[in-house]
Order: sequence, then C-alpha cells, then structure tokens
Amino acid sequence: MAQPKAHQVTLRSIADQLGLHVSTVSRVLNGRTGDGVRAASGDTAARIRRLAEELGYQPDPHGSGLRTGRSRLVGVLVPRLSDLVLAMIYEGIDEAAGELGLTTITANSRDDEQTRRLRTRMMLARRVDGLIFGDASLDSGFLDELAADGGKFVLVNRRAGDHPSVTADDVTGGRLAAEHLHGLGHVDVAVIAGEPYASTGTDRTAGFVGYYRDRGLAAPLVLHSPFDTAGGRAAAEKLLSRPDRPTAIFAVNDFAAIGAMGAARDHGLTVGTDLSIMGYNDTPLAAELPIPLTSVTVPTREMGRRALTSLTRLLAGEAVESERLAPTLVARASTARP
Amino acid sequence: MAQPKAHQVTLRSIADQLGLHVSTVSRVLNGRTGDGVRAASGDTAARIRRLAEELGYQPDPHGSGLRTGRSRLVGVLVPRLSDLVLAMIYEGIDEAAGELGLTTITANSRDDEQTRRLRTRMMLARRVDGLIFGDASLDSGFLDELAADGGKFVLVNRRAGDHPSVTADDVTGGRLAAEHLHGLGHVDVAVIAGEPYASTGTDRTAGFVGYYRDRGLAAPLVLHSPFDTAGGRAAAEKLLSRPDRPTAIFAVNDFAAIGAMGAARDHGLTVGTDLSIMGYNDTPLAAELPIPLTSVTVPTREMGRRALTSLTRLLAGEAVESERLAPTLVARASTARP
Repeated sequence: MAQPKAHQVTLRSIADQLGLHVSTVSRVLNGRTGDGVRAASGDTAARIRRLAEELGYQPDPHGSGLRTGRSRLVGVLVPRLSDLVLAMIYEGIDEAAGELGLTTITANSRDDEQTRRLRTRMMLARRVDGLIFGDASLDSGFLDELAADGGKFVLVNRRAGDHPSVTADDVTGGRLAAEHLHGLGHVDVAVIAGEPYASTGTDRTAGFVGYYRDRGLAAPLVLHSPFDTAGGRAAAEKLLSRPDRPTAIFAVNDFAAIGAMGAARDHGLTVGTDLSIMGYNDTPLAAELPIPLTSVTVPTREMGRRALTSLTRLLAGEAVESERLAPTLVARASTARP
Repeated sequence: MAQPKAHQVTLRSIADQLGLHVSTVSRVLNGRTGDGVRAASGDTAARIRRLAEELGYQPDPHGSGLRTGRSRLVGVLVPRLSDLVLAMIYEGIDEAAGELGLTTITANSRDDEQTRRLRTRMMLARRVDGLIFGDASLDSGFLDELAADGGKFVLVNRRAGDHPSVTADDVTGGRLAAEHLHGLGHVDVAVIAGEPYASTGTDRTAGFVGYYRDRGLAAPLVLHSPFDTAGGRAAAEKLLSRPDRPTAIFAVNDFAAIGAMGAARDHGLTVGTDLSIMGYNDTPLAAELPIPLTSVTVPTREMGRRALTSLTRLLAGEAVESERLAPTLVARASTARP
C-alpha cells in the first residue's frame, strides 16, 4: 500500500542522480563498515549522504534488515493479551522498543505448546532479531531447544530454567500475602494457585505456604485454576463448599480474586466481613471495586521495559543476569480479622 | 537469530542443485504468473517444485513480500492494549489473521495525533498490506489523508467519516441502556460519556439522551471523561457532589462504571440500593463484581474477526460495507428501582 513520501526517495534514485551503482549507495546509507564490507571513498560517501539528506531519504527498516541481518523487529509471545497484566507488560516492552526505533510483533500462545511452537516459528520466519516470552512454562523443554539452536530471548513475568528473565520476586510476594493474612489472625487459609506450569503461580504459592509451614501452622489448602475470573470463581466455589471452609483466600491474580468475590457473594458471604479475599498484581481495578481488593503491587510496565533492555543487551553480546523486582502489599477492605 | 530448519533450504540452494538461476526458482516458488512475470517452462517448474518439496522448502514471508509486493503483514493501531476491550478485539483480529497465514503488528497510539501518525508511518515502512485502526477519531482528517494517498484500511470499534468500519450499533446500545433505567423509574440520570472524539462514547450517549428527549423527559446530565477506571471515578465524583445528584449513572464503558462504583462507595452510597450504575461492553468482570454490573453486551472478539475479514476483502479489490453488530442488555444487581 502507499508508502509515506520519504520512502519514495529510493536508494536507486540517489544512485541514478549521482551516477553510482545502487550497491555503493546502499553500503553508505545502510551498511556497516565494520562488517568486512568495503565502504565507498570518503568523498563519494559524503556526496551520497548530502543528497540523501537533501531528498529526505529515510532508511527502510524492512530492506536494511535483509542487508545487515538485523530486522529491528522483536517478537513478543504472551499467553493472551486480554490478560490485563500481560497487556501492561507488553505496553512497557513496546514503549521501550519504540524509543530505540525497534518494532514489536506480538502473538498469543494461549499457553498451548503447539501454538507456542507455531507462533515462534512464524516470528523467526519474520526474521525477528530476538524474542521475549511472557508465556514460559516451568517445563522449559521448548526454550532449552531454542537456546541450543542459538535463539536469542529473554523471559518476562514468568521464569523457567536458567534462561535470563525479568520477573517480580514472586516468592517474596507470596510471603507478604501470608504475613498479612496471618497478622490479621487467619489460620485456616487457602490459595487459588493458578496453573501449575507457571512460575508466577507456583512461586507465589510457595512463598505463602512456606510462611505458614515455617511457623508450624496447618498447611494452607492449595487449589490450581486458570488465571482468569472464571477460573477463580470455579476454584472458590470448591473451597466454599467444603465443611472446613477457609476464613481467608489468597488468589495469585486479581482477576481470579474477583471471580472468588463472585462465588462468595453467591454463598451469601460478605467479603471483608465473613471472608477475606486478596489478589496479586494490584491492577487499576483493585482499588475501585465496591469492596476494595487487598493486593500485591508489582511494577508491571517497568518489568516490560526492563525485559526489552535485557534483550537489547543480549543482542549486543553482553551477559545478562535475571532480575527480580520487589513487590509490596497494599491492604484494603477485602481482608480483615476473621 | 537462528531460523527454523526448513528455512535453511534457500532458493539459492535449490537453484544450485538444478543448475538454474535463482530468479527462475523464485518466480516458480514465490511468484505470481498473473502479474506479467514470465513463468518458467512447465517441465522446469515441475522439477523446481519437486525438489523444493523433497527438501522441505518453506516460502519466506519476509523475502517473498519484497518480491510480490505482499508482505502478508497487517498493522493494527489501538489506543492502548491495556484497555481490555481493545485487547479482546485485537485477539479476534489476530486469531482470524493467523487462520489466513497473515501476521499482525500492533501499536498503541494513546489517542494522540502525533503518535498515531508516527506509528502508522512506522507500519507503512514495515510494508504492511493494510491497516486496521481501533483508535479512529471523529475528526477523521488523518484517515482522509491516508485514504487519499491510497492507504488500505478498515476501522474497528470506532467509526469515522465514510471509512469502512466494523463496530457495535452503539446508538442502539445507548438506547437500550436508557430504556432499562427509565423502565426502572429513573428520571434524574447522568451519562459518563467517554472522550468526545470517539464514536463509541458519542453514539452511546446520543442513543441514551435521544431516548429521554423523545419522551419529553429532562435531558440527562452528560459528562465527558477518559474511558478508564480513574476517568470514571473522577466523573462520578463530580456527579455525586452536585446538590441535584442523579439516581442512576450510565457509564459508556465497564471500567469507567467500576470507577464510578468506587466513588459511590466513598460517598457512602450502596450501588443498586442508593444509586444505580451501569456499564457497557459486558467484560468478563462485570458479572463477578461484589455488586454485579448491569452492562450492554457486544460481540467484541467477533468484531475483531470481522474487521480482519473486511480488510482482506478490501485488499482483494472488493467493495466493503460498514457493519454494525447488534448489542444486547444484561440486567444485574447494580441497577434497581430508585
């Protein structure tokens, strides 16, 4: 389709006007002298650059990708963008990418192994320079293979194996949640733990359970579930139908916590009075709910920005360490003394 | 970075094995015979295709884009992906694109004119075949220019000018909201109307206000605001601080409605009992809130799918009509008799 005007100034038109071969012009305007490519003489290069500037020539990221082996494209795989947390992380990635003149492509893997492989292959076929995975599974077989093949990537939100990642310190986040509920006096507690293949859910749960175990208290009930509202609702239904139902529920995700609130309502329980419920991620909704939700704040957008920074450092050949961002707890009306 | 194995079978390796020029191989495997390009003889073409199949050659979407003028890339501009409604629409677009072997690139315009132009230019530089705009402004100057330049695009969620669009029938949606609140007995009503540049907000508001006006009732109070939770909260604060405060509020978006719920709570009002609040879009959260939110359901993901279908038809040279998907109202506990 129509290109912006500046792109109609082609390498060929510059070459024609100067009586040079197009490859000479390309080398000067898009090439890298350090790559063993012979540059034009200083005088010729200066003439080319001057004319390019006069005509308003802009390098074509698509074309120069083919020439330099750099597409300036970054692929981002997420479970689903309709998960607000992932959407905010992606916005952080995209914002940081834009500042560096990089473009991102994103795709949903739906946490399905086959879709993950297919979408990754599609991104590689698009010649992405590197990838950011927001959908890492603790069973990191796929990522191990990709790394062995020379794939350049970092993980965000979820960690897996020894691959470089930028995540929250989720074990600490889970411990903060336990400390809060235990401090209010809750001993019969349960965790809506998310999917067992995601480090977010398992680390938050491990931190929470560890806190109770270290104090010699009864082990919290742990129930896995999808991370969304419907998943949280179904898990809470099960917990609230038990004869020994808990007095407090820690859901590893705000949306699951909102689903649990729906189940509590249907059981005739007022959240904050009859049952404490808390979430994780402190999404913008948490504070505004009719019963404001206690949650654990994680710098989501910053996590995305840092993942992009890590990837660019990795692509530049630097060693990259995993980062764990510190979570903090925000207490609200959804949790109270039993 | 590392390419999947199949891509290491290049056109050149096929050409070398058959003793043919690479351009001949390219024409057979990637070219279009109808484009005035002379194809290889039937026998040669058959030899090329047979070897390509044996070697597991897969066409490279990046490279073949350069040759055929089709990148199979679709650009999608949204205000922000952290708006759940846009994220769901985008998922619909991406799902439908994937089924057709198309790849989508997305970018946030933050409803800012300069960012919109910059990001669109970036996508054109990436040689997208066409664009889907989820961030159309009623002042369609930019889109008019793009269309005049031969740009191929469709709009989704928001309409503007005469450009082909796939949206909900938002005027009808607003009318349904008014019918519901009026039916419950509310005459002092207000609208949290979203941004004045977005057809979603203005159409829903027009439908709502029109219903009251047509019955000779007092005109509803209309307050513009950002579409998010914080925007809805701030607008509701203003409405609830008035001496003649309304008995019901229609927010043109579920997130703004949740923000309004937060403001009601701070004013000591119980939603559903002291004040009715309803939203729009029926996001998955609406039904699970401690006080379930009355909302207007719109087939969000389907809207995205249809926008992609419209764009592919437009790119194939077909005439494309705008589509308006029918909304339905879901009554819940957040609205009741005054």
